[in-house]
Amino acid sequence: MPRINAERLLFALRRFAKFGAYKTGVHRPTYSREDMESRHWLMIQYEALGLDASIDGVGNVFGLPSGPKPSLLIGSHAESQNHAGWLDGALGVIYGLEVARAFADAPDCAGLPIAPVAWADEESHFISLLGSRSYVGDIDEGEIDRARNVYHGQPLRDALNAAGLAGIPRRQAEPERHVGYLEAHIEQGDSLEATGKRIGIVTSIVGIWQYRIVFEGTQNHAGTTRMAIRKDAGVAAAMLAMAIAERFPQVAEERSVWTTGRIALEPGAPSIIPGRAEMLFQFRDADIRVLERMDVALRELVEQTSSKSGCAASIERTATGQPWVMDSAFQSALENAAERHAPGLHVRMPSGASHDAQLIARKLRSAMLFVPSIGGISHHWTENTPDEDIVLGCQVLADAAESILRSA
Amino acid sequence: MPRINAERLLFALRRFAKFGAYKTGVHRPTYSREDMESRHWLMIQYEALGLDASIDGVGNVFGLPSGPKPSLLIGSHAESQNHAGWLDGALGVIYGLEVARAFADAPDCAGLPIAPVAWADEESHFISLLGSRSYVGDIDEGEIDRARNVYHGQPLRDALNAAGLAGIPRRQAEPERHVGYLEAHIEQGDSLEATGKRIGIVTSIVGIWQYRIVFEGTQNHAGTTRMAIRKDAGVAAAMLAMAIAERFPQVAEERSVWTTGRIALEPGAPSIIPGRAEMLFQFRDADIRVLERMDVALRELVEQTSSKSGCAASIERTATGQPWVMDSAFQSALENAAERHAPGLHVRMPSGASHDAQLIARKLRSAMLFVPSIGGISHHWTENTPDEDIVLGCQVLADAAESILRSA
Repeated sequence: MPRINAERLLFALRRFAKFGAYKTGVHRPTYSREDMESRHWLMIQYEALGLDASIDGVGNVFGLPSGPKPSLLIGSHAESQNHAGWLDGALGVIYGLEVARAFADAPDCAGLPIAPVAWADEESHFISLLGSRSYVGDIDEGEIDRARNVYHGQPLRDALNAAGLAGIPRRQAEPERHVGYLEAHIEQGDSLEATGKRIGIVTSIVGIWQYRIVFEGTQNHAGTTRMAIRKDAGVAAAMLAMAIAERFPQVAEERSVWTTGRIALEPGAPSIIPGRAEMLFQFRDADIRVLERMDVALRELVEQTSSKSGCAASIERTATGQPWVMDSAFQSALENAAERHAPGLHVRMPSGASHDAQLIARKLRSAMLFVPSIGGISHHWTENTPDEDIVLGCQVLADAAESILRSA
Repeated sequence: MPRINAERLLFALRRFAKFGAYKTGVHRPTYSREDMESRHWLMIQYEALGLDASIDGVGNVFGLPSGPKPSLLIGSHAESQNHAGWLDGALGVIYGLEVARAFADAPDCAGLPIAPVAWADEESHFISLLGSRSYVGDIDEGEIDRARNVYHGQPLRDALNAAGLAGIPRRQAEPERHVGYLEAHIEQGDSLEATGKRIGIVTSIVGIWQYRIVFEGTQNHAGTTRMAIRKDAGVAAAMLAMAIAERFPQVAEERSVWTTGRIALEPGAPSIIPGRAEMLFQFRDADIRVLERMDVALRELVEQTSSKSGCAASIERTATGQPWVMDSAFQSALENAAERHAPGLHVRMPSGASHDAQLIARKLRSAMLFVPSIGGISHHWTENTPDEDIVLGCQVLADAAESILRSA
């Protein structure tokens, strides 16, 4: 029976949050100095457990047991969003480390190999889910050649080179080597907190469809161009945003979400009527039919807005993520463990966020566990989870890991 | 009788457009290399006419006659908006030069002194109307110390230093030295073209009131935050933009205009609900009562949007330009000259754009003349005016200048 060490777990989490500490959160962009230091620190911890520690060509860090017996991969991503929370990614990475430590401490767990892992760039500084996509063979060298940092434009190749990763092979998934993959994560929403639950067992991960929508109007002088003859691309963008706000509740399901993350008006000067507006829009659902319905509605609204505003419109779908169902036996293992440690305080739920598990699931049986987010806040430095929930989640994960490995 | 030289005028205009040529327009930001080259070129032309050519501490270029008789200032601004048209500002500057040349050519105009001038940064790269504000004593050193380039943040002091202007005094208006000020400009709207007129005589210049409106919502994860609990600052901004579009036609007058030039969502990432939205909004009218009515309406709409969206709102008025009436005797001089050269094809009209003349009018009798803009386009590199209208406008200006100087 693995027993996790609460003090050691919280200490490791707090130590990890020192890499790129920012207010009460962290700023640890992929391949930054702080990110690479955190990955090298992980390797030292993995080695101390007798694991074969390595970093691959995109920065994924593995701690692989040496024996022939298939191991259970446990982890998440090590980097953070910009100026964001200390637990997003880090929680799952440090859970992997603590579960490996707890198994090493427990005599009856000898022969149940745990392989902690830390993926790279799930948070899209260069390419969303880069590390797990690389691991499952979903990316080629050409895409890596072309990628740039989305915030400041640095080529990914330059960043890999500066991080000392150039020339190192990218490790590929070895299905015969692993029993499967478990990932823990903060919920990043308020469902658990709002319903008084302490553990979420993820049933499926939503598909995310992303769009770039561009309106082209007529750039002109904001003082001398009569209102009647304007073709204001900014007004068209606002019109579409409001049309979406009115229409989407009718075509979406209760758990669907949609977001306009960016509106950029060009040229963006106070005295010039915007000639061009670009919107980044996305929606998410766990049901492919709902995704398709929202796609149809969006395209209708863009067309109507174009016709009402007199601005030409174009819409490009930039990402079409498929929803992914989690392994049912693994879900049961997590649920049984949750019931043992928090009877009645767990719930099955879909994940509204994407996670490395949705990629790893293509090659290995995979499942995920959520712990509550205080106030539902994430992607912000105030993100947090009560210590007792952090500790509980790790023990549930350890128990589930044991049950999965024993029945493998 | 001054007779302008059409060929010389068009040649000078085209030569001037080579400073920062961009497509069929120009990119000549204030104090850029191209802008400073154009100002030094003007000084050479002024000197060739026997004028005392000088550049002052903010880049205003003067060609001052040496005699004791009060002269008539004629000009506009030399820099352009970014990637914009070849005539905006340049037309009035080169008219000043051509009128001075025509007067120098005409024996009967000896003793009627013309002082060509080119103002700096009317186009707000650092401070809107900087050159004319400096000239009339409407700016202090502290404001110059604090100002930065609105596009890339360079401090104004650094730009002045790089342009070789640091330490040069800023020339102040000398009302006893000048009879007044004339400025010609493209209309930048389509009123002249739409009504078949060739000359506009400006009656007044609109007041421009500008605002920075900020909505503060809750930044959060775009996948895990239920729609029901979101406080999306971007949605609030779109809601306000649409509320303005519906309400303003009821409180505005026919010639009023209003524009949202910029909407910036923070952090601006596709998977993060915007926690902050900043809008730059402005409106213009020649009637102070209409401006005040729009101000009241705007503040109501911001408050309503804040309450509907759940996002805190703040509104700051960043500019409160007063409408300014042009000198009536100068208007008559322009009208008589227009009637002589284009009978029936001129009209009195307010200016929807701000111009250096509205500042100079505080110290000197001032008036303005407009020539048509093809398609009403300006602040864009496709901006243009038919050659015959360019030539006509300059002759009308020269005639009016003669009449003003003779009756001074």
